[in-house]
Amino acid sequence: MSSTSQSSVEAIARAAKTAFEASQLLSSSVRETALRIIADQLEKNKDAILQANREDMKDAQQEVDAGHMSKPMLNRLDLGKAGKWEQMVLGVTDVASLPDPTGIVSYASELDDGLELYRVSCPIGVLLVIFEARPEVVVNIAALAIRSGNAAILKGGKESNRTTVELAKAISEGLNQASLPPTYIQAIQTRAEVSALLALDQFIDLVIPRGSNALVKNIQNNTRIPVMGHADGLCHVYLHKDADRDKAIRVAVDSKIDYPSACNAVETLLVHRELLHSVWVEVARALLREGVQLICDSDALSAIPSDSVTRPKPDSVVNSTEQSYHMEHLDLKLSVKTVDSLDAAIQHINTHSSHHTDTIVTESGEEGSKFCRGVDSAGTFINASTRFADGFRYGFGTEVGISTGRIHARGPVGLEGLVIYKYMMLSKANKGHVVGEFGDGKKSYKHTPIKISTVPF
Amino acid sequence: MSSTSQSSVEAIARAAKTAFEASQLLSSSVRETALRIIADQLEKNKDAILQANREDMKDAQQEVDAGHMSKPMLNRLDLGKAGKWEQMVLGVTDVASLPDPTGIVSYASELDDGLELYRVSCPIGVLLVIFEARPEVVVNIAALAIRSGNAAILKGGKESNRTTVELAKAISEGLNQASLPPTYIQAIQTRAEVSALLALDQFIDLVIPRGSNALVKNIQNNTRIPVMGHADGLCHVYLHKDADRDKAIRVAVDSKIDYPSACNAVETLLVHRELLHSVWVEVARALLREGVQLICDSDALSAIPSDSVTRPKPDSVVNSTEQSYHMEHLDLKLSVKTVDSLDAAIQHINTHSSHHTDTIVTESGEEGSKFCRGVDSAGTFINASTRFADGFRYGFGTEVGISTGRIHARGPVGLEGLVIYKYMMLSKANKGHVVGEFGDGKKSYKHTPIKISTVPF
Repeated sequence: MSSTSQSSVEAIARAAKTAFEASQLLSSSVRETALRIIADQLEKNKDAILQANREDMKDAQQEVDAGHMSKPMLNRLDLGKAGKWEQMVLGVTDVASLPDPTGIVSYASELDDGLELYRVSCPIGVLLVIFEARPEVVVNIAALAIRSGNAAILKGGKESNRTTVELAKAISEGLNQASLPPTYIQAIQTRAEVSALLALDQFIDLVIPRGSNALVKNIQNNTRIPVMGHADGLCHVYLHKDADRDKAIRVAVDSKIDYPSACNAVETLLVHRELLHSVWVEVARALLREGVQLICDSDALSAIPSDSVTRPKPDSVVNSTEQSYHMEHLDLKLSVKTVDSLDAAIQHINTHSSHHTDTIVTESGEEGSKFCRGVDSAGTFINASTRFADGFRYGFGTEVGISTGRIHARGPVGLEGLVIYKYMMLSKANKGHVVGEFGDGKKSYKHTPIKISTVPF
Repeated sequence: MSSTSQSSVEAIARAAKTAFEASQLLSSSVRETALRIIADQLEKNKDAILQANREDMKDAQQEVDAGHMSKPMLNRLDLGKAGKWEQMVLGVTDVASLPDPTGIVSYASELDDGLELYRVSCPIGVLLVIFEARPEVVVNIAALAIRSGNAAILKGGKESNRTTVELAKAISEGLNQASLPPTYIQAIQTRAEVSALLALDQFIDLVIPRGSNALVKNIQNNTRIPVMGHADGLCHVYLHKDADRDKAIRVAVDSKIDYPSACNAVETLLVHRELLHSVWVEVARALLREGVQLICDSDALSAIPSDSVTRPKPDSVVNSTEQSYHMEHLDLKLSVKTVDSLDAAIQHINTHSSHHTDTIVTESGEEGSKFCRGVDSAGTFINASTRFADGFRYGFGTEVGISTGRIHARGPVGLEGLVIYKYMMLSKANKGHVVGEFGDGKKSYKHTPIKISTVPF
C-alpha cells in the first residue's frame, strides 16, 4: 500500500474519532432521529441501491458459473429477494425503538458528604467491523452503532462493494440531515485499508470481525486494538444416561437440521454409554431420516442396526477419527462419540468446543445444573436446542454477532455489548473535594449507595 | 528459550486451565474458605517469606548503591517495613469478606412457556498478571483471582523473585488444604516464560499487565490473547472561567502533590484565559509554595509575577513546548496551558490525555455536565481531585489496577472486572424446546422478564 493511501486511511480513522467525540455532546435522541431519517433515505435511494446490487450480482453470477463462488453466497448477496429490502429498512426503525443503552447508571455511591460517584454506560468509541458479503448487514451494523453512540468503519465482503457504497451514501446523507457528522459511519472497500487501519490504535477502539476462526486469529495477530471475534461455533449436544427419548430426538435433530450452516448448529453429539442400545438408536434413526451423515466412534457405530432404514446410503454412517471432534461441519454431518459419564462429557466439551453453546439432555436437575456450571461456554442449555443461541431469540431485538471471546461481551451481542462505562464524579461541597483530607486521623469514606438509574447532572 | 522450557511453560498454562475448569464445579464458599486458610499459611510461613525478602533486599541494595535502582523502588520491595505484613494478610481476609462476584443474574427472561434464559456472572478463566516488584501485590492479586474464581499465573518484578516464590508456596499450600488445585495460582520468574505464555491463547484468557505504556503496548503487539492494560495516566485539571478560587487551588494542589508518582496525579493544568490574572496567579503561587515546577505556555507564564515568592528558584517557572503536554511527569512538575473555551479544553484533553481521569473546576452545573460527557476518559470529575480515581476510594474494597483500556472494564477494576457472564437456559417443557416450532405461523417468543438475582437451578 502506498504512503498516499496510508494517509487517506488515517484520514478515515481520524474523521471517525472526531465524529465520535463531537457526537458525545449531543443528546441520544439525535441519534434516534438520525435512524428514522436514514430509513427514509434508504427508501429514497432504493433504485440506485438495487441497481448497484444487480451489478454486484452479475459479477457474482460469473464467479458462480466459473465455480469460484457458492450458490448460497450468491443468494445472500441478493438484496432484491422478496421481502429482504423491507426487512432491512424495518430493522433500522426497530433499532431506533430499542431502549438507549447509554446513560444508564450501574453503580452510584456517596463517597463523602456532597461527593457523588456515578458509573454511567457510554459508547466505546470507534468500531471497525469486518463482515461477510451480505449487504443488509451494512445497514444492521450501522444502525446498532448509531443507536449505541459509536462511530463505525465498515468493511463488507468485496463481492458486495457496489451495494455497500450506495448504502453508505444513503446512511451518510441521513446522518447529515440529522446534524450528526456524515463520517460517523464510513464504508471501506479493500483488505489493504483494513490492514492499515489495524495499526491505528490511537483512533480505533474495537475491531469486530465476523467470519472464520482463521480471519479472527489473523486479525488478532496483527493489531493491538482489542478484538471482539465472532468466529466458529463447535457446539455439542450431550445425551445423559437419563435422557428422555423424545427430548433427545427433538433437541438433537433441531440442533442439527434447523440451519446446518449456522454457527449455533450442533457439530458433535455425545452419547452416554448406557443409551447406546436404546435412545441412541432412535436418535440415530431420526437423524438419518433427515439425511444427516453420522460420523461415529466404534461403539456408537456398532449400535446402529445395519438395515436399509438406518443406513439408507453406503456412507450414511462412517467411522470417526480424533480429528472429527475438532470439525465444524456446517453441513448435514454430525460427529458422534460415546462417553462414560457426565464428567467425561464436560471434559470433552471443554477441550473440543469453541465455547459457543452446548446442551445437555437430562431428567436430572442436579446433573443439568452441574453441566451448566462445568461447561465453560457462552451458552449452556438444558433440554433446549443449541439453535436458541441468538440475539433475537434471547430478546435483544437484534445482534451485532455472537462473540466467541471471553471478555466484555460473550455469546449473542446486542446493543449492550457496544457500550462500556465511565465514572462521573461531582463534588457539591463549598470547597470542592481533595483526597488529602481523608486517611488516618482524618475523614473516612462513607460509600453510601445512591439509588438512581440516570445521572442527575 | 529452549524447547524443554517451552514445554514446561505449556505445562504451567495447561495446569492453570485444568485447575480453573475443575474449580467451576465447586461452590464459591470453597474459594472463600481457601482465602482464610491462605491467610493462616502466610502467617505460618512468615519467617521463611521475610528471610527471602531480606535476600531480595540485599541484592537490591547493591543495585541502588551501583545506581541501577531507585530508592523508592527499594522501599516498595521491603515487606519487613512496619505494618506492611499485617496489611497484606488483612487484605486477604478482607477480599474473602467481599461479596461473591459470580453467580449473579443480570438478565433473565422467559422465552416461551417453560423456557427460561439466565445471564449469569462467572469467572473469565486463566489470567496472566504481570506487575512491578512489590511482593504484597502477589498476594493481593492471588486473593482477587481466587475470590472471583479465576486461575492465575503471576509474574512480579524480577527484583522480588525470591519473595514471590515463598509467597506462592504458602498460597499453594493454602489452596491444597482447601481442596482447590494448588496450580490454581502459580508464580513464574522470567520474561522468557511470559513470552512463551503469550502464545498460548488456548489456555490463557486474559493478560493483565501493570506498568508503563511501553510494557502494555509491547504485550499487545505480541499476543492474540485479550489484554487489559494498566498503563500511564496523563490526567488533566481544567479551570473553567467561572472557577471558584479556593476550589481551584485545593483541587489543583491536591491532584498534583498528594502522590506525584501515582498514575492519577495531574500532569497538565488547563487554565481559561479569563482567569490568567486572577485565579491562575493564586493557583500558581500555591503550587510553587509546594515546590511544584510550572512548565507554562507564554500566556500563563507571563501572568505569573516575577517576584521571589512566586519564582523562588530560577527554574520554578519555565517555558513549555508542545511535547510538554504529552508528558507524564510523575514528579513535582506540572504543564500549564491557556485555553479559550470549554470546547477547546475538551478537545485538548481528548487529544492529549491517556483517557484516565480528568477534572473540571466550575460553578456551572451545565458546563460541568458538558465536560463530563464530552471528555472521553474513564473518570470525569467536577470540583474533585483526580486522585479520587482509585478502587478503594470508589468503594470496591480493593483493585486489580486501573484499566486504561476501553472494553470490559474501565478505570479502577475491582472484583467485578474479573468476571464475565454465560447464558444458561432451562427447558421445563415435557418435550424439551426446539427452534423449529417458532416462526411465521408458528409460536412467537414471549420474552417475559424474570425478576431474580441468582439462578434457580
